[in-house]
Amino acid sequence: MPRQTQIGLMSHAELVSEHESQTANYATLKTEKLTLDLTRGKPSPEQLDLSSPLLALPGDGDFRDGTGTDCRNYGGLTGLPELRAIFGELLGIPVDQLVAGNNASLEMMHDIIVFSMLYGTPDSPRRWASDEPIKWLCPAPGYDRHFAITEALGIEMITIPMRHDGPDTHAIARLLANDPQIKGLWAVPNYSNPTGVVFSEEIVRELVSMPAAAPDFRLFWDNAYAVHPLTDTAAPVLDVLGMAATAGHPNRPLVFASTSKITFAGAGVSFFGASKANIDWYLDHAGKKSIGPDKLNQLRHLRFFTDAEGVREHMQKHRRLLEPKFALVRRILEDRLGASKVASWTEPKGGYFISLDVLEGTAARVIALAKDAGIALTAAGSAFPYRNDPEDKNIRIAPSFPQLPELEKAMDGLATCVLLAATEKLLEA
Amino acid sequence: MPRQTQIGLMSHAELVSEHESQTANYATLKTEKLTLDLTRGKPSPEQLDLSSPLLALPGDGDFRDGTGTDCRNYGGLTGLPELRAIFGELLGIPVDQLVAGNNASLEMMHDIIVFSMLYGTPDSPRRWASDEPIKWLCPAPGYDRHFAITEALGIEMITIPMRHDGPDTHAIARLLANDPQIKGLWAVPNYSNPTGVVFSEEIVRELVSMPAAAPDFRLFWDNAYAVHPLTDTAAPVLDVLGMAATAGHPNRPLVFASTSKITFAGAGVSFFGASKANIDWYLDHAGKKSIGPDKLNQLRHLRFFTDAEGVREHMQKHRRLLEPKFALVRRILEDRLGASKVASWTEPKGGYFISLDVLEGTAARVIALAKDAGIALTAAGSAFPYRNDPEDKNIRIAPSFPQLPELEKAMDGLATCVLLAATEKLLEA
Repeated sequence: MPRQTQIGLMSHAELVSEHESQTANYATLKTEKLTLDLTRGKPSPEQLDLSSPLLALPGDGDFRDGTGTDCRNYGGLTGLPELRAIFGELLGIPVDQLVAGNNASLEMMHDIIVFSMLYGTPDSPRRWASDEPIKWLCPAPGYDRHFAITEALGIEMITIPMRHDGPDTHAIARLLANDPQIKGLWAVPNYSNPTGVVFSEEIVRELVSMPAAAPDFRLFWDNAYAVHPLTDTAAPVLDVLGMAATAGHPNRPLVFASTSKITFAGAGVSFFGASKANIDWYLDHAGKKSIGPDKLNQLRHLRFFTDAEGVREHMQKHRRLLEPKFALVRRILEDRLGASKVASWTEPKGGYFISLDVLEGTAARVIALAKDAGIALTAAGSAFPYRNDPEDKNIRIAPSFPQLPELEKAMDGLATCVLLAATEKLLEA
Repeated sequence: MPRQTQIGLMSHAELVSEHESQTANYATLKTEKLTLDLTRGKPSPEQLDLSSPLLALPGDGDFRDGTGTDCRNYGGLTGLPELRAIFGELLGIPVDQLVAGNNASLEMMHDIIVFSMLYGTPDSPRRWASDEPIKWLCPAPGYDRHFAITEALGIEMITIPMRHDGPDTHAIARLLANDPQIKGLWAVPNYSNPTGVVFSEEIVRELVSMPAAAPDFRLFWDNAYAVHPLTDTAAPVLDVLGMAATAGHPNRPLVFASTSKITFAGAGVSFFGASKANIDWYLDHAGKKSIGPDKLNQLRHLRFFTDAEGVREHMQKHRRLLEPKFALVRRILEDRLGASKVASWTEPKGGYFISLDVLEGTAARVIALAKDAGIALTAAGSAFPYRNDPEDKNIRIAPSFPQLPELEKAMDGLATCVLLAATEKLLEA
C-alpha cells in the first residue's frame, strides 16, 4: 500500500524518512535491470496487427482506382480521389481541397515551410528567406518534431502557454497584430501532443479571425489525432477551413493528417487540406520534386477501408487496445503520486500521450534517474522550443507501445523517480 | 515504297513535288483522327505486369526484415540494409554509403539542392541562398525534369554541348575553374535521357578530377538507367564515388537511382549514394522532414528480387518488351527519313529514349503538325534549359508506352510531319 502523504507538508524528519524510503525503492528498481521505453508515440505490434490485410493488398491484378487510373504508373500529383473522399469526409474537407501524399505528413509541413522560404506563399510580398528572421508561435508543451523543423530552418520560436482549451489566444493576438515577422503557428487541435488538449470552437474561431500583421501568416493545423478518441464521445473535427473563409482569412489554415496511427506508422498515407489557392500553390512546387505520390499504397488503403465508416470502426479497435494502457498509467500515477501533491498529469480523451508535470526543477533529474534504471523517457524539455522547459517540470509519457506488464513496471519505476527527485529537491531547499 | 531522295539536293521543281506529296500524306494522316502519345518515358502495361507479384507482397504476416525491424512501425531513416545491399551491388556503392528512400529519386535530388540552398553542403562556406545567383551546368539535350528543378529555384542554367561519349569536358573545365557560383552539374551517365549517350570512363575521370572554383561543386549523377541495357553487352556502371575519392574530391558525386523503371513507376524505391560525409549531412536534414521512408515498400521489393541477380534477370524481361519498340522506331526512321538527309537520330544501347534531330528551325513546326494530327510529343525545346533549343531541331521520342501498332502509326505520322516541315522550310529559303 503506497504512502498517502502530501510531501510538501512533511516535517524535515518525515522528508528525510521519505527520501530514505524512495532511495531504497530506487535501489531495488535498479536491481531489476529493466529496459523499457516510453519515449515515442509508436503503435504497439497488436495495433499494427489490426491492419494486417494491408500486407497483401491491393492483391494480384488489382491496380486501377475507380477513375481507371493505373496506379502502377507515373502521375496523379493530388492522390487518388476515392481515398481523398474518405478522409475528406472524416476531416470535413472538400475533395478538391485535399491532397493525398506519401507516408509522412511531417514531410508536407516541412516542404510547405521550405517552399515559403524559397518562393513565398500566395499571399507573400517576398519569399520568406528575404524577410529573415522569420518567427513562429509555438504553443507548449507541444510536439518536438514540429519544433525541430522550425529550429533547423533558423526560425525564431516564441513559446505560447497552452491552456485547457487551446493555446493562450490573448498572448497570440497581441504578438500577431504587431509583428509581421510572425509567419506561422504550430497546432495539434485535437488531442494535442502531449497534453491531450482539444482546442475549443471559441479558440479556433479566435485563431482564424484575429488580425495578423503578416498577410501570409499560417496556422499549421496538424490534425494527427482527428479520429483517435479514447472515449465514447469523440471531439468534433471543426471545419477550420470554412471558419477561416468566413472570417476573411481563407488561406490561413493548412490542415495535415495521416494514417500513421491508423494503419502503419511510416507506411501510411498523408493528407494536406487547404484553400484552393494554397493547394494549387503547393502542387505547383511539389510537382517539381516528384511526379506524384505512391498511388498503390493509396489504393491499398482504399481497399482496406472502403469508406469513412470503415476508418471509424477500425479506430474503435485501436481504442480498445489503447484504453487499458491509459487507464493503467492513470491508476499508477494516482496510487503512487496522488496524495503526494508533487505531480499533476493530464487525462486525455484521445491521442497518444499523457503529459506529466513533476515538482518544479526536477524533470531533468527524474528522466536521468529513470534512464539509469533502464526506463527511457523523451529527453527533458522535449515538448518545448529549443528543448527549454522553463520550469523543468514536464515529462511526456507515451503508453501505446509497451505491453501492459512492462508499462506497469515502467510507470511504477517512474513514480519512484518522481518521488525521489522531489524529496532530494525539498531537502536541498 | 518510300521515296529515297536527298531533299537538300532536290531541284526547286522536285522540292515542290515532294512538298505536295507530303502535304497529301499529312492530309490523309489527319483523317485517321489518331490519339497517340510519345511524350513521356512511361513503362507499358506489359512491363508493369512483370512486377505483378509485388501487388500482394510482402504478404500477411511478413513484416520483419533480416535485422528484425518491424517495417510497419516508425524509424530507419536509411532504409532496409538488405535492399541497399542489392542495389549497392548493382551500383557499385558500399551499403553504408547508400540510402533507400521513398518512390522518387527526383525528390532526393530536389531536397539535396534545397538543403544546400538553405543550409549549405559540408564543403560550403555559406548556404547557397547567400551566394545567389547560383549557376548550374546542364549538358543538353538533357532531362527536362532536372532543368525544371534548377529553373524553379532561380538557378542560372548554362547549356553544355553533349558529345557521343558524354558532355563537353573542355567547356566544363573552363567554366568550372573560374566561376565559384557554379555549384552543380546534371548528369545521366548511362543511357542519357534523351540521347542514350553513355559517359566514357575518360569523361567521368575528367569530371571527378578537374579543378573547380567552388569547393562545394557537385555532380548530380542520376543513374536512372544503370541496369537498363537494350543489348547483350551492358554499359559498365563506373565507380564514380571511388574515382572521385581517388581524385581528391570524395564529396563531389551524388549518385541517384530508382526502381521506377524496374518495378512500378511512381510506386518504386529510390536510392541515394555518396561519400559518408554527404550521407550523414543528408540524413541530418532529411531526418527533420520524415521519421523515415516507407519500409514496407522496400521489404516488398526485397522479397520480389531476393538478390542482385534477381534484378538483372528482371531487366532482361523488360529488354525483351522494349527492344522491338526501339527496333520499330529505328526501322521507320530509316525507311521514311534515311535517304532524305533532313534528320538524324540516336541508336541507344539502353534507356528509354531516342533523340531525333530534324532540319534546323523545324522542330517546333514538326511537333505542332504532329499535335494537330493527334500525335503528342514532348514540347519543343524540352530537352534544353529554359526549353530553348538554340537550333530548333531536337525531338525526344519515348517509344516504351504505346503498343507496337500504335507506335508504328505514330512514328509514320511523325516522319510525314518531319518531311512536310522540311520541304516547307526549304521552299521558304
